[in-house]
Amino acid sequence: MSERKTLDERAQMTDLERVRHSSAHVMATAILRLWPDAQFAYGPPIENGFYYDFEMKHRVTPDDFEKIEAEMKKIAKENQKFEYKAISREEAKAMAESGRLGGLGERPGNPSRFKLDLIDKIPEGEQISCFQNGDFIDLCAGPHVGYTSKCKNVKLMSVSASFYLGDESKGSLQRLYGTAFENKEDLESHLTRLEEAKKRDHRRLGKELGLFHIDEMVGQGLILWKPKGALVRRALQEFITGELDKQGYSQVFTPHIGKLDLYRTSGHFPYYQESQYPAIAERDVLEKLADEDATCATLINGLSDGTYEGYLLKPMNCPHHIKIYASDHHSYRDLPVRLAEFGTVYRWEQSGELGGMTRVRGFTQDDAHLFCTPDQVAEEVTGCLELVKKVLKTLGMHEYRVRLSLRDPESDKYVGDPENWDKAEAALRHAVQTLGVDYTEELGEAAFYGPKIDFVVKDVIGRDWQLGTVQVDYNLPVRFGLTYVGADNAQHVPVMIHRAPFGSLERFTGLLIEHFEGKFPTWLAPEQVRVIPISEKTLEASEAATAKLADAGIRVTIDRTSEKVGAKIRTARLERVPYMIVLGQKEVDEGTVSIRRRDTEELETLPLEDFVAKVKSEIAERSL
Amino acid sequence: MSERKTLDERAQMTDLERVRHSSAHVMATAILRLWPDAQFAYGPPIENGFYYDFEMKHRVTPDDFEKIEAEMKKIAKENQKFEYKAISREEAKAMAESGRLGGLGERPGNPSRFKLDLIDKIPEGEQISCFQNGDFIDLCAGPHVGYTSKCKNVKLMSVSASFYLGDESKGSLQRLYGTAFENKEDLESHLTRLEEAKKRDHRRLGKELGLFHIDEMVGQGLILWKPKGALVRRALQEFITGELDKQGYSQVFTPHIGKLDLYRTSGHFPYYQESQYPAIAERDVLEKLADEDATCATLINGLSDGTYEGYLLKPMNCPHHIKIYASDHHSYRDLPVRLAEFGTVYRWEQSGELGGMTRVRGFTQDDAHLFCTPDQVAEEVTGCLELVKKVLKTLGMHEYRVRLSLRDPESDKYVGDPENWDKAEAALRHAVQTLGVDYTEELGEAAFYGPKIDFVVKDVIGRDWQLGTVQVDYNLPVRFGLTYVGADNAQHVPVMIHRAPFGSLERFTGLLIEHFEGKFPTWLAPEQVRVIPISEKTLEASEAATAKLADAGIRVTIDRTSEKVGAKIRTARLERVPYMIVLGQKEVDEGTVSIRRRDTEELETLPLEDFVAKVKSEIAERSL
Repeated sequence: MSERKTLDERAQMTDLERVRHSSAHVMATAILRLWPDAQFAYGPPIENGFYYDFEMKHRVTPDDFEKIEAEMKKIAKENQKFEYKAISREEAKAMAESGRLGGLGERPGNPSRFKLDLIDKIPEGEQISCFQNGDFIDLCAGPHVGYTSKCKNVKLMSVSASFYLGDESKGSLQRLYGTAFENKEDLESHLTRLEEAKKRDHRRLGKELGLFHIDEMVGQGLILWKPKGALVRRALQEFITGELDKQGYSQVFTPHIGKLDLYRTSGHFPYYQESQYPAIAERDVLEKLADEDATCATLINGLSDGTYEGYLLKPMNCPHHIKIYASDHHSYRDLPVRLAEFGTVYRWEQSGELGGMTRVRGFTQDDAHLFCTPDQVAEEVTGCLELVKKVLKTLGMHEYRVRLSLRDPESDKYVGDPENWDKAEAALRHAVQTLGVDYTEELGEAAFYGPKIDFVVKDVIGRDWQLGTVQVDYNLPVRFGLTYVGADNAQHVPVMIHRAPFGSLERFTGLLIEHFEGKFPTWLAPEQVRVIPISEKTLEASEAATAKLADAGIRVTIDRTSEKVGAKIRTARLERVPYMIVLGQKEVDEGTVSIRRRDTEELETLPLEDFVAKVKSEIAERSL
Repeated sequence: MSERKTLDERAQMTDLERVRHSSAHVMATAILRLWPDAQFAYGPPIENGFYYDFEMKHRVTPDDFEKIEAEMKKIAKENQKFEYKAISREEAKAMAESGRLGGLGERPGNPSRFKLDLIDKIPEGEQISCFQNGDFIDLCAGPHVGYTSKCKNVKLMSVSASFYLGDESKGSLQRLYGTAFENKEDLESHLTRLEEAKKRDHRRLGKELGLFHIDEMVGQGLILWKPKGALVRRALQEFITGELDKQGYSQVFTPHIGKLDLYRTSGHFPYYQESQYPAIAERDVLEKLADEDATCATLINGLSDGTYEGYLLKPMNCPHHIKIYASDHHSYRDLPVRLAEFGTVYRWEQSGELGGMTRVRGFTQDDAHLFCTPDQVAEEVTGCLELVKKVLKTLGMHEYRVRLSLRDPESDKYVGDPENWDKAEAALRHAVQTLGVDYTEELGEAAFYGPKIDFVVKDVIGRDWQLGTVQVDYNLPVRFGLTYVGADNAQHVPVMIHRAPFGSLERFTGLLIEHFEGKFPTWLAPEQVRVIPISEKTLEASEAATAKLADAGIRVTIDRTSEKVGAKIRTARLERVPYMIVLGQKEVDEGTVSIRRRDTEELETLPLEDFVAKVKSEIAERSL
């Protein structure tokens, strides 16, 4: 539901927001000129633009956009002044009754019914006001720009159904979205970016390139990695695994469920149950409650309050890793213990928030938990940051910043020894500084159980993505009673570090698809080379070349169709294959291959062996 | 609950079962000589031996076994005759009232209370009988051996608490287990095998070697793969992955849940729900039912009958793979499509049946589903069998047989075209024959949806394990409406093949632990080389050697403790490390290493480089 803005919020409106708010009035003016029966409800500025909800007989379609935009530009040219007028509740009501509010004039028999309701919602004692531009008067508290000429850089974006103040019972309205900027350049760069984002949309590319599939019968937000997407994921996992092996991590595998008791101990249940799939009750609990004619509420409450046992789809991997740590005795000499897992976790996102790979209900974290002494925190965090940095560099993501979230020194909501906090914060700050990238310190943004570091990465079209997190945790080791024997022969509690460089393989792959526009670097490309025989005559030699490439571990296919070479090349380009090698009689005779790249028209001819070596080294080095 | 055997079952008792049944009587006789107050309940032969349930004041412990066994052997030597006597119900009751049944004589004040109850359970009209050996008379329908001398090859195994006919409300009895064989050799080989199995028990070794952990707080039957176990699994997965890549399989990744609708379509739900974790209801269903004060029974029934939607932890991967197949259009030219996944599935086993890695509730199948034309079934099945064969050969499992399960030609319970069945059965038979191993054809053992092949592997101590399965399926492709366009341009239904060479990675790893007694071949060993410096003086050179081995991709650790060399070697052997290399000053000076193997006392000295090359090639070749 859209809420009425407070006075304070209105006072803080930026110039751009005023332009967008005023543009909503201009759009309403234009609509009324075209369809005088329109009744307007609510029309605020939003991120990236504005909308207005309204009801009228004509149903707006994108075909109408040009006409409405033309009218809006005309109104901008007319340079109408936005005029504020304070009115009494009685005046406001009378204007609404006559259809004048949200209209170009009085409209007998067509009262401003939504405005009437909005007036009723204004608290007693608050000043009621309207704004007028040209003939259009709207119930409005402002603020606005001075003249409609400021609203000339506009573009209508889309139209959809909506409900009055989000309330389904009030019947369906039309919602027209537009965007507006202070100048032409900003508008154009925004539209270009949208165009670019659309071109790169991983949902469309994921389908076109056969990377992943979401199936209603499997469930919303659950990704089926198709063969080609799975190859990308395998390449990413192999890359990460290599780095983990180098850094002395141990991989583990853990189940995808755990008893509720595990999550009661960790604190994930029942407190976060709204963001989890509902619990699975123990079979005997279900049978007993069914026998006793107990209600579902009894079951749900009993699971929540611990009367009944059950299982939870794991919302995170930490409790399982903790149980692995706890299954052995540890001495300070064994620490740090670094447990890593490509662990698939499940969380309940509202269905409206789901989209492609970036908002999902099941995702695989490149997760790890480090158990160390307080003295080791600094070095371990540095190791984690180096790993994230390496990952981003390898993938050509050079623009990123780091957020260091610290505790609010005034608050007492934090667990753990203040001395350890000081130490950990200092360690994190030091680690970030040695990383040599921009960072901001955010006081009070730490979790209650420890400070953390986030990476915010800019993709090629300038959008921010929050990725890798490194989080220090003083809480879970205490909750689970974890210990190690120190050099002093006494029991101590280890510190835990949670970290995931990609965050989630699904989200990260979604980002990569958009970042590369599906044109993955060779080491990540599901198909690395396409062999194209010019004709039947060179088919045999092409098969031999294909086999040679495959033997070298290169992901290669051959195009055996009877299409023309040009068409085969076009297909391979559409499928974003990095290299196409064409074999005609000349190449066969000379033992060479004629090489085309995905992105250039440039041709290169190389002996097959050299090409194999070139591609192999490109893959081994993970070149971009 | 132990059931009274039918006449038919009694008639079919083997000689060995008679020996065991009679041994139970001999044991009862011995117990009565030692503790005359014993009241016997039920004492049948079972797999691998026999038991008798009884009640008496003295609580038997393993310390009593020698004494009881000595008495049993004495009774065997006395060579008492087993004599059958038909008695009337009244006679039987009178004998029980006097304490005579299950006693060495009348026992006034101590009636045979369990026998009285057993008499009541004998249906009217059925002949009641007793058997007598020496003074011991028992209510019994036989059959028995002729004389107690046949019962001399006996051994008491264990004692536990039990309930009269499994009924807790009747109070606790003692159950004494024994085994008996027809001759000494069989008894001894059985005991040796038990000893061997105990030594190899993967539950104990898994704990000792840090391979896996089961945690009550995570859940019964759910395996946490600890770092070392995960290394074994990774080596297995890598091996399989290499073979899959060679055979043209495509790996996929799919979520661990699916909508009930998916399993309603596949037929897995609700029909098999007893062997699944309970379903997860959709959140809004739960909320609605809770609001309406609906009962749990309404919820459970509504999920079962399809009124309500929800999710199931996936009991198998096929429906997900089917959805991937169905997400593209297919031409006969694209077939076969071979989708593989290390897919973790969840099934509900009764808690009493859970044990270690071999009976679990969550397990990872090395699963694949092939979608092909009917004509391709033969070749694809052969490919699958070759893969299983390769797997078994690589792991040194040479003793196995194959079961070919065919349809019962008399029955009409099978789905799919009889012509296709004939073709598929012929294809499977042909494939098995070309495999060149023993096989049996089992008529009527096919699933209703297609014929299948199982591998039954004998481990080193002679136990059978059912492993890899290849299953042809005509059913699911129809249920899910799968199609491909044939050469005739018409829509056809593909045939599906399910196959999993290991079956489950958990179970297979459990088997491997026992098969190798934890002494994994080098390529599978979690730790491949242990470097042992003789003293502080050679520590630096040892570190350098360790680094060299690690750089070559060998899993190596160094023992930096201050233990003596002998102790360090002992530790490494206990941890089943295949190679220990010891570095003294001589070796450092000469650039060599002194090599010890896990199993022999033999010493070998090699230049470090040669040792690295040797281990690397052993790993690459997956030598045993």
